[in-house]
Amino acid sequence: MKVLVIGASGTIGQAIVAAISPQHEIITANYKSGDLQVDLSDPKSIQTMFKKAGKLDAVISAAGLASFASLSDHTDNDYQLALENKLMGQINLLRYGREYINKGGSITLTSGILSRQPMPGSASISMVNGALESYARAAALELESLRFNIVAPAFVKETMELMGMDSSYGISAADTAKAYIAALEGDQHGATLDVTDYI
Amino acid sequence: MKVLVIGASGTIGQAIVAAISPQHEIITANYKSGDLQVDLSDPKSIQTMFKKAGKLDAVISAAGLASFASLSDHTDNDYQLALENKLMGQINLLRYGREYINKGGSITLTSGILSRQPMPGSASISMVNGALESYARAAALELESLRFNIVAPAFVKETMELMGMDSSYGISAADTAKAYIAALEGDQHGATLDVTDYI
Repeated sequence: MKVLVIGASGTIGQAIVAAISPQHEIITANYKSGDLQVDLSDPKSIQTMFKKAGKLDAVISAAGLASFASLSDHTDNDYQLALENKLMGQINLLRYGREYINKGGSITLTSGILSRQPMPGSASISMVNGALESYARAAALELESLRFNIVAPAFVKETMELMGMDSSYGISAADTAKAYIAALEGDQHGATLDVTDYI
Repeated sequence: MKVLVIGASGTIGQAIVAAISPQHEIITANYKSGDLQVDLSDPKSIQTMFKKAGKLDAVISAAGLASFASLSDHTDNDYQLALENKLMGQINLLRYGREYINKGGSITLTSGILSRQPMPGSASISMVNGALESYARAAALELESLRFNIVAPAFVKETMELMGMDSSYGISAADTAKAYIAALEGDQHGATLDVTDYI
């Protein structure tokens, strides 16, 4: 399959590319590097990316910005970033990308387990993760020629190590990639694939 | 308790006011009518409403706009309305209202069962309903002096009748109000109260 991976330079994105590149043709897209560049906050940038990519069998997004902050410190900008980038940026990948997907293909976006297992500081991240999961469940009812799913990663071991956190309960990026492979190669539609169910 | 009911003129709002006014002091707020006026899309309007209301024991919102449209017909404006009004409008009730709530009080917002039981046309409504439910779960972890919950109504019988729909599986506004009373008078925090669990 011809697969566009957005956020391919990230910790999860790199693991996805490594896992699927033996079997599939990959186009990478990042904010600055990769085969194509894209700014998820900018709908025109997304449209330009798809025009350049051409017909695809699948889109996988492991991208989307949102910030941790205590509830009291959450600013308008924190909410706006989560809504414009991680939420609408990814939803716009579906809105503008669906016409480029060959019949039987798929689009997979990324939420995160904080939608259902929140922690202090995660309010806006939990908000957009929950939004993505409910959106996919609804939108899938009206998508017949492609499958549309969400992968919900848990904490990624490599990221936790970079942040100086105890990574003992983290899940490696390579294990995290397994849920994306399931979304790409399986038959699920409108589902949220919890990474913890695929390792 | 002194309770500010936002969306008090709506079908659900009227039923909430009718159910709680024997025991509680009610301040009503609507877009145009009521004791106070508020435009949920406008943060300044929300701040002004709270200043005028003064100290409160509880806020109940049965307000928030979002539109049904087929996925292909969903415009930028449809997404924007849902995000600015039903989602951030209600979240701003928590953000700006929490300082007005007396210790031990509560804020209750409205999502809807379409977050988990979507239907064709509900994509942006499902999106914001899911966002509200995950947000409350997360934000509650950082709210110690007040309780914060979401009520998820199902289809309201009176609304279905107004729309010429078969209302046989609808739930009356009076029965819908019972979940709001549970949120107001109970001890839940960070929860989504499904109306179907309270009738």
